Amino acid sequence: MIASIIGATGYTGGELIRLLLNHDKIEIGTLTSESHVGKKVADFHPNLNGLVDQNFVSLDVNKIIDESDVLFAALPHGASNEIISKIYSINPDVHLIDLSGDFRFDDLAVYEEWYKIKHTDPELNKKAVFGLPELYKEKIKKAKLIANPGCYPTSAILGSAPLLKNKLVKDDVIVDSKSGVSGAGKKLTDNTHFPEANDNFSAYGIATHRHSPEIQQEMEKLFGKRVNLSFTPHLLPINRGILTTIYMTFNNFMETKDVLNLYHEFYKDCPFVRILPEGKFPQTKAVAGSNYCDIGIKSDKRTGRVIVVSAIDNLVKGASGQAVQNMNLMMGFDEKAGLKVVPLYP
Amino acid sequence: MIASIIGATGYTGGELIRLLLNHDKIEIGTLTSESHVGKKVADFHPNLNGLVDQNFVSLDVNKIIDESDVLFAALPHGASNEIISKIYSINPDVHLIDLSGDFRFDDLAVYEEWYKIKHTDPELNKKAVFGLPELYKEKIKKAKLIANPGCYPTSAILGSAPLLKNKLVKDDVIVDSKSGVSGAGKKLTDNTHFPEANDNFSAYGIATHRHSPEIQQEMEKLFGKRVNLSFTPHLLPINRGILTTIYMTFNNFMETKDVLNLYHEFYKDCPFVRILPEGKFPQTKAVAGSNYCDIGIKSDKRTGRVIVVSAIDNLVKGASGQAVQNMNLMMGFDEKAGLKVVPLYP
Amino acid sequence: MIASIIGATGYTGGELIRLLLNHDKIEIGTLTSESHVGKKVADFHPNLNGLVDQNFVSLDVNKIIDESDVLFAALPHGASNEIISKIYSINPDVHLIDLSGDFRFDDLAVYEEWYKIKHTDPELNKKAVFGLPELYKEKIKKAKLIANPGCYPTSAILGSAPLLKNKLVKDDVIVDSKSGVSGAGKKLTDNTHFPEANDNFSAYGIATHRHSPEIQQEMEKLFGKRVNLSFTPHLLPINRGILTTIYMTFNNFMETKDVLNLYHEFYKDCPFVRILPEGKFPQTKAVAGSNYCDIGIKSDKRTGRVIVVSAIDNLVKGASGQAVQNMNLMMGFDEKAGLKVVPLYP
Amino acid sequence: MIASIIGATGYTGGELIRLLLNHDKIEIGTLTSESHVGKKVADFHPNLNGLVDQNFVSLDVNKIIDESDVLFAALPHGASNEIISKIYSINPDVHLIDLSGDFRFDDLAVYEEWYKIKHTDPELNKKAVFGLPELYKEKIKKAKLIANPGCYPTSAILGSAPLLKNKLVKDDVIVDSKSGVSGAGKKLTDNTHFPEANDNFSAYGIATHRHSPEIQQEMEKLFGKRVNLSFTPHLLPINRGILTTIYMTFNNFMETKDVLNLYHEFYKDCPFVRILPEGKFPQTKAVAGSNYCDIGIKSDKRTGRVIVVSAIDNLVKGASGQAVQNMNLMMGFDEKAGLKVVPLYP
Repeated sequence: MIASIIGATGYTGGELIRLLLNHDKIEIGTLTSESHVGKKVADFHPNLNGLVDQNFVSLDVNKIIDESDVLFAALPHGASNEIISKIYSINPDVHLIDLSGDFRFDDLAVYEEWYKIKHTDPELNKKAVFGLPELYKEKIKKAKLIANPGCYPTSAILGSAPLLKNKLVKDDVIVDSKSGVSGAGKKLTDNTHFPEANDNFSAYGIATHRHSPEIQQEMEKLFGKRVNLSFTPHLLPINRGILTTIYMTFNNFMETKDVLNLYHEFYKDCPFVRILPEGKFPQTKAVAGSNYCDIGIKSDKRTGRVIVVSAIDNLVKGASGQAVQNMNLMMGFDEKAGLKVVPLYP
Repeated sequence: MIASIIGATGYTGGELIRLLLNHDKIEIGTLTSESHVGKKVADFHPNLNGLVDQNFVSLDVNKIIDESDVLFAALPHGASNEIISKIYSINPDVHLIDLSGDFRFDDLAVYEEWYKIKHTDPELNKKAVFGLPELYKEKIKKAKLIANPGCYPTSAILGSAPLLKNKLVKDDVIVDSKSGVSGAGKKLTDNTHFPEANDNFSAYGIATHRHSPEIQQEMEKLFGKRVNLSFTPHLLPINRGILTTIYMTFNNFMETKDVLNLYHEFYKDCPFVRILPEGKFPQTKAVAGSNYCDIGIKSDKRTGRVIVVSAIDNLVKGASGQAVQNMNLMMGFDEKAGLKVVPLYP
Repeated sequence: MIASIIGATGYTGGELIRLLLNHDKIEIGTLTSESHVGKKVADFHPNLNGLVDQNFVSLDVNKIIDESDVLFAALPHGASNEIISKIYSINPDVHLIDLSGDFRFDDLAVYEEWYKIKHTDPELNKKAVFGLPELYKEKIKKAKLIANPGCYPTSAILGSAPLLKNKLVKDDVIVDSKSGVSGAGKKLTDNTHFPEANDNFSAYGIATHRHSPEIQQEMEKLFGKRVNLSFTPHLLPINRGILTTIYMTFNNFMETKDVLNLYHEFYKDCPFVRILPEGKFPQTKAVAGSNYCDIGIKSDKRTGRVIVVSAIDNLVKGASGQAVQNMNLMMGFDEKAGLKVVPLYP
Repeated sequence: MIASIIGATGYTGGELIRLLLNHDKIEIGTLTSESHVGKKVADFHPNLNGLVDQNFVSLDVNKIIDESDVLFAALPHGASNEIISKIYSINPDVHLIDLSGDFRFDDLAVYEEWYKIKHTDPELNKKAVFGLPELYKEKIKKAKLIANPGCYPTSAILGSAPLLKNKLVKDDVIVDSKSGVSGAGKKLTDNTHFPEANDNFSAYGIATHRHSPEIQQEMEKLFGKRVNLSFTPHLLPINRGILTTIYMTFNNFMETKDVLNLYHEFYKDCPFVRILPEGKFPQTKAVAGSNYCDIGIKSDKRTGRVIVVSAIDNLVKGASGQAVQNMNLMMGFDEKAGLKVVPLYP
């Protein structure tokens, strides 16, 4: 089958290509870019030298629909809404995975408040499925349009779901997340200029980051009622990886091993969640390049709290790997196809 | 005056020398090391090439007391207790700043529980003053033995003191700290081997780190009652710097600007605390090499919480700089002497 | 077939496992370690959590020969000589790839001078083939014992071979190499302690590094006469990657494009050498995790020199990937089996 | 005295401020910026929070001349020429240190060939003194306009001067330099975007870098005849620091210790050159933040070559520190005033 990528110059575009090159059911189709039409793909993704010989082309919506069996959209928020809307108006049966935030919200008022963008296709939004396979596998299998989750939300939701779903904790949740710089994308900014980011560390978007309502939406669906969530992202001087530290308070204290058992049970059919043994905690490098989400847990009797630490590669399980996983489910492939990359350590 | 350093091979020893070289009232006296007697100081601290021409000598307690006006002890926990005890048994009037954890606890039962070491000098411990000048300046001026605070505690206590002292928040406190690798010292370990630490990030010592009771002791003295503290340290792939993110819940919501005013007032006589303007948050590099503690604040109406972010250089305000600041107060020097280093950025 | 690894706790051991996990003809057999017998493999290689469930075992030479179709030895110099000698004394038909320096030298006097080790098996040494497939593919196919080249030599020899072989340059060769820290292995040392190596850069082993005679041996075999080689290694604050800058002087000036053509022709049957287009130069990250050697070239009319830059991942093409490539050739597999990893960028 | 800085938003501007804050003879005057008029200085140089309370102002040439005793120009090439020309046309007695390349060349044809800029003031160019105090101290003392050397040239020239000046080597010189990213300035580029530069390494500007003719000019003045120089810069994933490895061939072999003695003698009146003992080599971190140039030397009998390694902080001895040193000499201050910063290690 042919997979094409709309907006393939960025890091998530490059990752989609990297993963699809080792997918036995997929051939890479069209790679679009409006800013770099005619440029060699390998000039933007130098790892692909000798592996991808194409040039970027401008998007021709009709043509890409005709030529492709499945589409990935790796576009900026807002732009994604518009183009995807157009695609489904031409052909409502397209299979598409959207990596933007445009179709992730059940309540578009929330989207519009946090993204400051008017959504133009509420009907299509209703049909989109939130693409977190560990929670919505069956829906994804039947979906046509998938809203691939954000990187921070993936780490925060996977880290807390078993406890929230089983209502074993109170409604106060602190999510302290730390992300590598590739999460900010390929766009040049002062904060991501090497001399400013290197050997440095800072918080940003405190109480105002757009992944906050996405995390809250999913936590509340699991918990069945309001969650009082604080989410703080930080910028790590590393390329890839998110490590999220989650603080919750038990209703009734549980030992670490019992929480671990709960997580093992909850994720028993999830090939990409690795629950670490008691006393072990995740590190971002141990998942680098792979689609794994590693989780470690510590119950603290002294405070009555449970501290969960989760780690993902923000570009893989946090973006392109999860998108391929969603494609696999939607298209009926093996869930792990193209995702057998062993993490690169050290 | 002559300042000598007991245990000068480590990073905090090197930093003491670096700072004292620019202190107009101090001449560097004896530099001791048991493991590297006779070796050139500059071979361990290559930045000091051409600046320090001494060799390390073995500790001779009587001699160092005679030859020095003030002593710094940069020794491992336990060893520090023993040697300092001996020093004061010879001369109870020595001025000494201890950088270990041995004299930081009011309640030695807490020390012994968390450090797994029997304290051998409870009488001397009673005389030690906790050397956080922003809280205990007057006591420090009259002290002889100063227990220099831990690096994490310095960032956590300075970040929360004004709100706790004024009882404006509830007793639930989350302290999520991230430290550069120099905080782990010069000792070689698997976790601090470059290929393991570089481009990587992880949590450690969750709910079990020895700085936890030190933070709790000081928070509770400020708050006047029990604090339910969770403290999680993380290992940052940077050399220097601690950034601490503190989550507290208001009793009654306050706007960010009002909290900032409170902090300005609280720290008005503290030359090394910099309260950042509304909307600005600290970054570790902006304090690198200096004795500053930068603080940024965000009140979040949606959750009723206040998020405080503080940043220090763990080797300076978190160790040797604070030690020099304590010496200045204790010896009657200008509080800023030797500490006018402008942070190195980028 | 079954592949076993003697000495599997180090980085090259971990990399062999990572690559062999995706090799369709190979099952991983025994993984030995003398220092960590009984420990879980995933505790040393945390990326392998959930992928490798074995524990390390002590080496039993007879048993490992019986149970394996091919062996990799990732042992320290000297120890390797001894154990491999024993293996071949038991069974002269074993297929083994040695990652140490013990069997790389035609002239054992050179080995003994630079390694300060007496070689105990000159007869076996004569049978070993230097495992650089781009130069010795046919010999490797027929070999039983392969001496896998050093990381620096791989980058230096591949970068210079076409010009030396065709005698287009003079005998003065400068090789200025820069390596990531994983090249120094998992052993803890002061130089590779994170705070010393991070945000730092230095040269080491100037004119005395043991890869010097290995580079010289192969250059002289290509050149047909003495080469006056200076080789300087440097320690880069990165995990993986060697970048080598080679300076040679033309006998008769050639334009860049003509040198590029020469290299394309020379390496036309070499799937892992990527010659970059004129004006492009390698970067270490563009080969990370993969078996590629990227090469860029600049002819400089003003000086009459040619500057060649080559980049490899020191743990892959510089060690374990090349070892798998050698195994593939020796065992009759597809040369690229297990080595289809797309480099991880960024 | 009052020192003002024309173009103070960049890294070299920030460094000038950092150093001048600790200069006992200097008060900081006007800080200009055309792009950021009215913005707070500390918003661009966050280390200066609480230390500098000024805003950037637009350049008013007459006013800045009146209000200042000495000027620094940290402007882009070409722009510098123009503004400095204007300044001297108003007042020929201004003392000014120019950090651009515009007045560094004796032969403006060379400048124009490499910089692709037409120089508009050849008369003024003749009066400018190349500000390398280790070579031109007496001229600098009498100068009015100083052309502060480039960062790479400073490291290359100091590393080779004693051997070239004494004609102990042949005319073939290879300069292989590696620089931290701050050398590329504050301007955002793809190459200096964190995810592209971090954990990565590459060469650039091979045989075409504009510091090449500057190095050659000074080497030839020392050597008294043509030098066949190859200069290759590389981009290190560190913030600060240049390490330069220089390869020269002896006319008659000299032992390392004899070369070291020659260097000690040559630099005996140079407070910022530190010749390391035999067997020790520089590391960039050992000079970070300081004005030192560290030099290590190895004579290699086998090849007849001498390898010299030099290290500087590119923003200090390679730019702003050297500028302050030049100011000190020109204005009659102590050469070390403002430059007593001890390097920050680790």
